[in-house]
Amino acid sequence: MTFDYKIADLGLHEAGRHQIRLAEHEMPGLMALRAEYGDAQPLKGARIAGSLHMTVQTAVLIETLVALGAEVRWASCNIFSTQDEAAAAVVVGPEGTAEEPQGVPVFAWKNESLEDYWWTAEQILTWPGAAEDPELGPNMILDDGGDATLLLHKGVEFEAAGAVPATTDADSHEYSIILDRLRKSLAADPQKFTRLSAGILGVTEETTTGVMRLYQLAEAGQLLFPAINVNDSVTKSKFDNKYGIRHSLPDGIMRATDVLIGGKVAVVCGYGDVGKGAAEALRGQGARVVVTEIDPICALQAAMDGYQVARLDSVLEQGDIFVTTTGGKDIIMAADMLRMKDKAIVGNVGHFDNEIDMAGLAAVDGVRKVEIKPQVHEWVFDGGTERERSIIVLSEGRLLNLGNATGHPSFVMSNSFANQTIGQIELFTKAGTGEYRKQVYVLPKLLDEKVARLHLDALGVELTELSAGQADYLGVPVEGPYKSDHYRY
Amino acid sequence: MTFDYKIADLGLHEAGRHQIRLAEHEMPGLMALRAEYGDAQPLKGARIAGSLHMTVQTAVLIETLVALGAEVRWASCNIFSTQDEAAAAVVVGPEGTAEEPQGVPVFAWKNESLEDYWWTAEQILTWPGAAEDPELGPNMILDDGGDATLLLHKGVEFEAAGAVPATTDADSHEYSIILDRLRKSLAADPQKFTRLSAGILGVTEETTTGVMRLYQLAEAGQLLFPAINVNDSVTKSKFDNKYGIRHSLPDGIMRATDVLIGGKVAVVCGYGDVGKGAAEALRGQGARVVVTEIDPICALQAAMDGYQVARLDSVLEQGDIFVTTTGGKDIIMAADMLRMKDKAIVGNVGHFDNEIDMAGLAAVDGVRKVEIKPQVHEWVFDGGTERERSIIVLSEGRLLNLGNATGHPSFVMSNSFANQTIGQIELFTKAGTGEYRKQVYVLPKLLDEKVARLHLDALGVELTELSAGQADYLGVPVEGPYKSDHYRY
Amino acid sequence: MTFDYKIADLGLHEAGRHQIRLAEHEMPGLMALRAEYGDAQPLKGARIAGSLHMTVQTAVLIETLVALGAEVRWASCNIFSTQDEAAAAVVVGPEGTAEEPQGVPVFAWKNESLEDYWWTAEQILTWPGAAEDPELGPNMILDDGGDATLLLHKGVEFEAAGAVPATTDADSHEYSIILDRLRKSLAADPQKFTRLSAGILGVTEETTTGVMRLYQLAEAGQLLFPAINVNDSVTKSKFDNKYGIRHSLPDGIMRATDVLIGGKVAVVCGYGDVGKGAAEALRGQGARVVVTEIDPICALQAAMDGYQVARLDSVLEQGDIFVTTTGGKDIIMAADMLRMKDKAIVGNVGHFDNEIDMAGLAAVDGVRKVEIKPQVHEWVFDGGTERERSIIVLSEGRLLNLGNATGHPSFVMSNSFANQTIGQIELFTKAGTGEYRKQVYVLPKLLDEKVARLHLDALGVELTELSAGQADYLGVPVEGPYKSDHYRY
Amino acid sequence: MTFDYKIADLGLHEAGRHQIRLAEHEMPGLMALRAEYGDAQPLKGARIAGSLHMTVQTAVLIETLVALGAEVRWASCNIFSTQDEAAAAVVVGPEGTAEEPQGVPVFAWKNESLEDYWWTAEQILTWPGAAEDPELGPNMILDDGGDATLLLHKGVEFEAAGAVPATTDADSHEYSIILDRLRKSLAADPQKFTRLSAGILGVTEETTTGVMRLYQLAEAGQLLFPAINVNDSVTKSKFDNKYGIRHSLPDGIMRATDVLIGGKVAVVCGYGDVGKGAAEALRGQGARVVVTEIDPICALQAAMDGYQVARLDSVLEQGDIFVTTTGGKDIIMAADMLRMKDKAIVGNVGHFDNEIDMAGLAAVDGVRKVEIKPQVHEWVFDGGTERERSIIVLSEGRLLNLGNATGHPSFVMSNSFANQTIGQIELFTKAGTGEYRKQVYVLPKLLDEKVARLHLDALGVELTELSAGQADYLGVPVEGPYKSDHYRY
Repeated sequence: MTFDYKIADLGLHEAGRHQIRLAEHEMPGLMALRAEYGDAQPLKGARIAGSLHMTVQTAVLIETLVALGAEVRWASCNIFSTQDEAAAAVVVGPEGTAEEPQGVPVFAWKNESLEDYWWTAEQILTWPGAAEDPELGPNMILDDGGDATLLLHKGVEFEAAGAVPATTDADSHEYSIILDRLRKSLAADPQKFTRLSAGILGVTEETTTGVMRLYQLAEAGQLLFPAINVNDSVTKSKFDNKYGIRHSLPDGIMRATDVLIGGKVAVVCGYGDVGKGAAEALRGQGARVVVTEIDPICALQAAMDGYQVARLDSVLEQGDIFVTTTGGKDIIMAADMLRMKDKAIVGNVGHFDNEIDMAGLAAVDGVRKVEIKPQVHEWVFDGGTERERSIIVLSEGRLLNLGNATGHPSFVMSNSFANQTIGQIELFTKAGTGEYRKQVYVLPKLLDEKVARLHLDALGVELTELSAGQADYLGVPVEGPYKSDHYRY
Repeated sequence: MTFDYKIADLGLHEAGRHQIRLAEHEMPGLMALRAEYGDAQPLKGARIAGSLHMTVQTAVLIETLVALGAEVRWASCNIFSTQDEAAAAVVVGPEGTAEEPQGVPVFAWKNESLEDYWWTAEQILTWPGAAEDPELGPNMILDDGGDATLLLHKGVEFEAAGAVPATTDADSHEYSIILDRLRKSLAADPQKFTRLSAGILGVTEETTTGVMRLYQLAEAGQLLFPAINVNDSVTKSKFDNKYGIRHSLPDGIMRATDVLIGGKVAVVCGYGDVGKGAAEALRGQGARVVVTEIDPICALQAAMDGYQVARLDSVLEQGDIFVTTTGGKDIIMAADMLRMKDKAIVGNVGHFDNEIDMAGLAAVDGVRKVEIKPQVHEWVFDGGTERERSIIVLSEGRLLNLGNATGHPSFVMSNSFANQTIGQIELFTKAGTGEYRKQVYVLPKLLDEKVARLHLDALGVELTELSAGQADYLGVPVEGPYKSDHYRY
Repeated sequence: MTFDYKIADLGLHEAGRHQIRLAEHEMPGLMALRAEYGDAQPLKGARIAGSLHMTVQTAVLIETLVALGAEVRWASCNIFSTQDEAAAAVVVGPEGTAEEPQGVPVFAWKNESLEDYWWTAEQILTWPGAAEDPELGPNMILDDGGDATLLLHKGVEFEAAGAVPATTDADSHEYSIILDRLRKSLAADPQKFTRLSAGILGVTEETTTGVMRLYQLAEAGQLLFPAINVNDSVTKSKFDNKYGIRHSLPDGIMRATDVLIGGKVAVVCGYGDVGKGAAEALRGQGARVVVTEIDPICALQAAMDGYQVARLDSVLEQGDIFVTTTGGKDIIMAADMLRMKDKAIVGNVGHFDNEIDMAGLAAVDGVRKVEIKPQVHEWVFDGGTERERSIIVLSEGRLLNLGNATGHPSFVMSNSFANQTIGQIELFTKAGTGEYRKQVYVLPKLLDEKVARLHLDALGVELTELSAGQADYLGVPVEGPYKSDHYRY
Repeated sequence: MTFDYKIADLGLHEAGRHQIRLAEHEMPGLMALRAEYGDAQPLKGARIAGSLHMTVQTAVLIETLVALGAEVRWASCNIFSTQDEAAAAVVVGPEGTAEEPQGVPVFAWKNESLEDYWWTAEQILTWPGAAEDPELGPNMILDDGGDATLLLHKGVEFEAAGAVPATTDADSHEYSIILDRLRKSLAADPQKFTRLSAGILGVTEETTTGVMRLYQLAEAGQLLFPAINVNDSVTKSKFDNKYGIRHSLPDGIMRATDVLIGGKVAVVCGYGDVGKGAAEALRGQGARVVVTEIDPICALQAAMDGYQVARLDSVLEQGDIFVTTTGGKDIIMAADMLRMKDKAIVGNVGHFDNEIDMAGLAAVDGVRKVEIKPQVHEWVFDGGTERERSIIVLSEGRLLNLGNATGHPSFVMSNSFANQTIGQIELFTKAGTGEYRKQVYVLPKLLDEKVARLHLDALGVELTELSAGQADYLGVPVEGPYKSDHYRY
């Protein structure tokens, strides 16, 4: 058996296997699901196309899906985020060898080009034999950021239109690459995505940005299959976004720059869950944190948590470290960067790289880009008669916690991925029951609480049990759920 | 003009007026509403029966309601929480004198008996002339904990049944007093509450416990008028519950005991918003905080925030300070208190005094209650042959932040009370439009964001404005609301 | 037996006795010294003139000194800091009654005039019968701020000069009162202080300011007897100054103003131990703290701890709360206060009230002082055509943690006072051995460590013991001391 | 010109030069000294033998010493801590090339053997031509941990004795290697160290452990030349030890293991400056920190800072992460590690690797050591009939912040190294004046304050200036020093 794709070095698989073994210890949620559902095989028959950062933690997710009966093909959802040793280990599989891999097809490597990236996105949807027999194609999508879902929906849209529209000046560089890829697909097989989409039973989506797209599609009546919004499980949004970033943001900054965070002025753009985790981490390292916000409620929270809340414009000259966490765009523009202090550090842990105006930066007159090391670049501004000045940009504006470190730690991802796994089981096993329509759903609170429960023992948490009388007094079941749906935690 | 009720000392009104003036500076939300709506008088014609801790902050709320056109009668919702000087100043009014009060009838004083308390609850519903002309009765309720709403609903229920049921052994002491009060009412006027309830256009409810009762009534189809759940506005639940307690809990403990919090083991029962604020405050004073929880999600949050999470039983002998924050009942029982360290401090900032088993404590064999000062009692256990041991209970198990300190500070209450005021305007001005039925509603997010906006300037917060392009990218209006309804902040 | 002094109300003594009993539980250091030295009576024959805030905690100190054999007379060292019920209880004594007090003569009450204050300072040095028999006069001084020591040294100086110098314009108001008092003394008994000073075996001094004066006297060769610098015991300076303020600063602000600290900008002048505790407390309550400093090392520490470090001038318009902690003078001047925001709060936890320019404030053209409640004053500036503006000054610029709250909590003072007690034993029992000359001494580190040891059990601390091999490796004795004298903790 | 030593890869020098350039920006103290003393060349004639972790920051120190006129030879003071690219860049020099290096001889590479290590220690003392002309030998030592000083003193001792003593069973493995090295030296040149030591004008020592040795030598009258204790400058001990560890400890744990620190129980052994920084960092990441201590004062500080203080024995089964910070030995023994949870992480940031019983661990029956990646080892215990269990040991028990990360960040080291540089200038320029004898000295406080001053601008700190009146009132010079020598900061 050979896999028809590229891995930097399959020889990495042993190192990856060690890391996966250690990560399993830090992912009690996934391991508990393997124990609970290993015999029942609820995902038997599921053929999952997964698009999510190909890290060690994702390896444990993939192997959990397999342990529950699924067949899987995988790509990363970010060109920098793959850990090659993890990819290699997944390909080889726990029982395989480099010569006879027995794992899962993975289409991901560190430092992909955008062209490669969208090729991999198509590969996970392109299952052997499916062109002939649609029954062999994928029937589930597991997505992060919605790129797999986007490709599928755009493919269906253009196939219905009979052609891919011409690329225009208004299109981003990346969108032009997507259009190119779909042009090739339509040329080769004008009904591929239409055929594919008919077989999809549902998608589970990991992140804010992807979820927003799904709600927009559903609202427009264009969503092609049911979707579970994993992002808004409490055990995802409040854990991955906040506690994950609290760990991986300083990790990324430290690995990238070795610059002391203590005593510095750190400007955190956005005070959502990611921003809250970022601010806490930087303060915990002794930085003075300034927050920028557009939402008056979040701004008030930041003030009450003791942070200065200012407009970016007011603190450009004071900041030593700038971090975007918004999920929006155009947060830090080239003109802003030109005003920053010498050697200011600029990075993003929001979603897309358009939070930082990388294109504008590259277009600054006389700017020079020096690679300090991979994913760490000094952008030197020509000072004319003044002394030269430069800033440091991490991961080219993409997610620095993935590009400069290894992303969220296993324990956090165990929460998110337990939600993903439960979401896949939910949609796959209930397909055809009519319980889920072409809408976006959040997991029931009891399942959310279940995910939390799976992680308590590992932290030595003793949970108190309600007595029947107490539960009755509160009007909740003894075994939960304990809160109304609008409870904010 | 004389008011037919009891105030400890009307001579206190000047001190109260000073405090109200200072509080107005700390309540920018209410003052902004006076400025915005003073001319329009949206509450003209509203006759509001208010039941909410009669503090200096509430005085600013009451005078805001009056400034917007309302007539008001007021009682406290807790027997210990009234600040007599505030009550006196409200009665006298900004322009009145002790001899010629021109303010608002207030039925509240510090240290009421339970019998007094339920008498005051009836008084705010009993408007002069209303027995003859229902048009003169109250048409709005502003409630905290739901006691005014409860009395009204029970009154209607028993009037329909033709009699108040006999008191049974299963009834709590307090409930027996409520039954007594209703028996007197039915004897005097067997349709009073039925008549009253017909005129009520709606209620706005302040707190978790009261809201829970409202949802139960609505679910059972027994809610007699529309209700706005003020508690679940973000600017209420996340500010009052969390940031208010962060201030008023240590304030109460310090005033009551003067005991150093630093270095102590503090056990916080419950890690909801109140518990989160309590834990943060105690840690901020250098205590080592242990959390108890029944909800696995909140328990996991506590662990991720660095707190030990244990069952009460595991830490009874280690704790120096025990604080209940749950809104439930039977959290700390007499048997628990018997196991605590000598001079352990026990207090409640949840809701009702049944979080701590005060009845059980009083029934402990040989126990002796020593008043150290008002609201601070030492309960001495007879040690037999062992040395004597005692614990300190604050505010007799009722809300210590109100009983031992002055409750939440003005700025926090400005958020909550701006929501209350907006809620009153909403229900009163839309009565008859059919927009609100006999259900429980949360304020629209845009109004919630408005409340936050009203408080930013006072804190020197600079809010960033979205560009049209950014708003479009995010799919939100430039002026908000910015988040989906299920966003958790 | 009658005591020849004034106590506001001896009827307070029962309340004071309750508080003393509770404080004993929080002062394990003093109680352990009573247990250790009660039989040996090392202070038998000591006649101690004590000048230290007459609080509940000081009551436990006084009764510890008595339990160790001493005779004592006491005054407060601050005109606002006396807790009358504590003073009353000390006078009555644990075994006495209001009719037959059996305690200690105390010359202190809340809200003394400056004239009264210096009269009380003289009273503690004026023992019955000592004019005739110097053997009956005081032989030890226990001082806080050095006022008792100052009066004695000035008395001796002027008696040697034969007259008290004329008061000049350059003299402060308070110094003119001191001169008046000494004039009366010299008129009545021209050798009183000279005679007194000959009998003094030593002084133990509590605080930075007093210690500085002692070093200056010693350097000038003018110190009349040995002195122990209690302030610089680690268990004093690092505990009382830092952890005491962390508790009593927010306590004072909250009791005085009920203003929410969270979200406010708090300016802390000085980042010594007191400033560090103040900043930590305010941040712990959610304030944004700005620090001012003159020492580059402390300034760098503040920056590394995440605080903005600015000159006062740069943040006058931003601050909501201003706290001086310096021990210096002229920190916040009247011109500064004129620039502050409306209702800004100004207070001092440093040492003397000259940290805040109270004289300059009172002299502002058109200023009006409104008493909100005792120790809380609004100073209203005449705004001319502008709107009126005011600031709030706590405790008239004197120590707000004492004036507006009850000072440091018992547990902290147990550390300080255990050092005081050990210092008194050290100087008294070694008098005549030549071990202590007319210099200033710090307690040996082993005694400092002993004070710490006495407080560990109460906090549930398990101390690790060095093995002989480990001690040998480190070059320290198994039983301590463990650090060199210059170790900074 | 060729250098007679081994560098892993001179091709690394360009990467190293980039990093040095960025580090210079973060080392304002050293750059200011270059600016201040560049012309005066105070180190002209100094020949410095340096033994200190060969990192990027040390490169800036070395080039500062050279810029001030010194000749330098360098080794690392830890077998794992060299950053090869930094070493390469220093060898090549700012102006040199790989072919024509113009920098400084460096004897250091990552992962030395102990035999190599002590060879490099001898190499920095062995200057070309010095065997013939002692004037060409080193005249200054810059030490960290005291190994260069130790080798010199032992060499002199054994040369005086005429022979190196036989190795005994009581000698550590490392000491046997030192003896071997000295045997070779005595065989080749029986007076080498005696001759060398005569030329040494002084040593500046970086760290606690080295300083302790120096004081012991001085006390025993065996110190061969004056020493400056750089470690106890406030700007060293309070910055490097505390703030450096706060950064580099989580950095090391994260890079090594990617394990989420949040929610974990972290046991920090020792609460000195290093322990304080470690505890703060781990709490800042959401860990629950337990401290172990032998010193009652530090233990009380830990409790007052809100940490549980326990004996290691009490928490072995609860801890997820164990960190030694003591400078002592035998802190975590093999028997302790056998009781830890599966996958517990064990590391050291104290001084020597004997804080963790690595020898005992390797001798555990059936233990297996698995390299996860360099400096990260899983030690698997044979569980017999029980399930297998393992722990993770970082950097083989040596300093994990250097072995698993890149040590303290530049800004912190700029403080320490400015002290080193000023210390070298002080001893070298005052040699022969008699000001420094064969004792251990701390830098004058004014120089300590100067080091702090050099770092304020970079952090945007505004320092307040004392007025003459204020300085007079405080009794300090306007320009400092501001504190007594015993002030603890």
